[in-house]
Amino acid sequence: MNAAVERLVAGVRAGDVPSVARAMTLVENREHVAAEILHALWPSTGRAWRIGVTGPPGAGKSTLAAALISSFRKAGKTVGVVAVDPTSPFTGGALLGDRVRMGVAHGDAGVFIRSMASRGDLGGLSAAAQEACDVLDAAGKDVVLVETVGVGQTEIEVIDAADTVVVVLHPEAGDAVQAMKAGLMEIADVFALNKADRPGADRLEQEILLSLGLRAHDATTWIPPVVRVVATTGEGVEALVAELDKHRADLETRGRLDERRMKRVEQRIRLLVETDLREKLFRLPEARNRLDRLVLEVRSGRTTPYTAARRILDGTTP
Amino acid sequence: MNAAVERLVAGVRAGDVPSVARAMTLVENREHVAAEILHALWPSTGRAWRIGVTGPPGAGKSTLAAALISSFRKAGKTVGVVAVDPTSPFTGGALLGDRVRMGVAHGDAGVFIRSMASRGDLGGLSAAAQEACDVLDAAGKDVVLVETVGVGQTEIEVIDAADTVVVVLHPEAGDAVQAMKAGLMEIADVFALNKADRPGADRLEQEILLSLGLRAHDATTWIPPVVRVVATTGEGVEALVAELDKHRADLETRGRLDERRMKRVEQRIRLLVETDLREKLFRLPEARNRLDRLVLEVRSGRTTPYTAARRILDGTTP
Repeated sequence: MNAAVERLVAGVRAGDVPSVARAMTLVENREHVAAEILHALWPSTGRAWRIGVTGPPGAGKSTLAAALISSFRKAGKTVGVVAVDPTSPFTGGALLGDRVRMGVAHGDAGVFIRSMASRGDLGGLSAAAQEACDVLDAAGKDVVLVETVGVGQTEIEVIDAADTVVVVLHPEAGDAVQAMKAGLMEIADVFALNKADRPGADRLEQEILLSLGLRAHDATTWIPPVVRVVATTGEGVEALVAELDKHRADLETRGRLDERRMKRVEQRIRLLVETDLREKLFRLPEARNRLDRLVLEVRSGRTTPYTAARRILDGTTP
Repeated sequence: MNAAVERLVAGVRAGDVPSVARAMTLVENREHVAAEILHALWPSTGRAWRIGVTGPPGAGKSTLAAALISSFRKAGKTVGVVAVDPTSPFTGGALLGDRVRMGVAHGDAGVFIRSMASRGDLGGLSAAAQEACDVLDAAGKDVVLVETVGVGQTEIEVIDAADTVVVVLHPEAGDAVQAMKAGLMEIADVFALNKADRPGADRLEQEILLSLGLRAHDATTWIPPVVRVVATTGEGVEALVAELDKHRADLETRGRLDERRMKRVEQRIRLLVETDLREKLFRLPEARNRLDRLVLEVRSGRTTPYTAARRILDGTTP
């Protein structure tokens, strides 16, 4: 490890804000040195409570995240936030609209917020988001909150790596059905029924409870509670935090925290292996040229994608 | 190729419905023999017009898909449909609610509809959906329509492989902003502004046009038209089909169809390579055991995910 990297790692460990910001930029840009930094930071991770906040578009995730941050701050906890936006090739970055609402915590040294956009790279977003959580964890944040729009496998993968998952739904547009379709009902540890003052809140609550009834469980299973909140006014947020605390306690007493973290480690190893192979097989100049040649062969009818893939895997096409 | 596979391939090519259904089941279940079948069918693909239909949850995609099917059928075209639902581990399959609305085409031998659910496998859904389109293409369908909920990278990947992409939006819940965030505005060839009889339709149209104004283009660039429809009554559907036809003609006259299909071939080769490697590195019994051992080593603090990944890549951990 060279001196600059060593200094950066020490800075992150000490919670130095510029070091944390710099490390996260390296991680987000998938710089090679990032792996070295993350490897060095790894032993300092594992202390933070990672909370995932997800839900369909428009459910009020960012507003609720801001309310949660305020609540944790009042309780004296430091907070790190990673907000993930799906790919947007032509904006070339995260759309900042929603993020602004998080501005509630702006200027508070106990909160570090990072907005991330994917570089259009399947897998890259998931890896970068989780590694950004590692940086915040190693920097000593008590709580690391990760927020994503909850539709799509990549996004669910990011959230699934959290210790506690909050699924935010709102009483409009058949949210419960959409959430079921998106696989959100299965990953929820706590439901936040946002905009609970609007018509349809009772019906949504019934739908959530109904879908939970379909879930297999025994006496030791954690049953996700449904907490009604109005994120814009802060109503119900303390009750939500109380349920999050209960879930954390449940994880710790039953050894499930370790189980979740084993899963997280496995997922991380797989992501690292896949990212490296993708680079070697498709991105490096020689690999890129080979792929281009094979595409032309398939288009001209001389081979099929199945044979082309076999040739890459066998290394028979130089 | 054994005799059973040969018969199945011949059956698909002849458009025999049970053969098509059987081939799609093999593809969806990721059976090994599927690759052999798809390899054999490949030379028969490329004739169908692939139309992707996507949009945020609740925009009315399935209803619009049903209206499009009716229209194509009236024009004497045969139609294949692949409807993709995101992962739902506890339902173990696609939720059938929406699909039922497609029942309009039920019992018509000129239409083949297949609903697919992911097996919780990143990449697997995208591969299976596109291969299902290949089967329908090889079976001689004039139009292959693929429908997904349009949020998340995997879903966008599926849609992006189509020749013509219809993005369905409706005038509720800030659809345009959500669609931008999800990267949908960039992949749209035609916008269907559904539920155009509802309040807010004018505003949504303005928002779409505004976002299109941000897109780089020159005189030869296809500018996605916005077509107002009411999918439930069929209003505007003929105008939508007319715009789809124009887009197809544009693709063909400017060599862009070939460009799109080159991209599709490349994506397919990459998916095949990645799926195979995932199997070899993480799923086969020996690989699974190795991964489990490495996870334990990381959890016990003896190594980090970065070193573990390196060991898998170097093959130094047997």
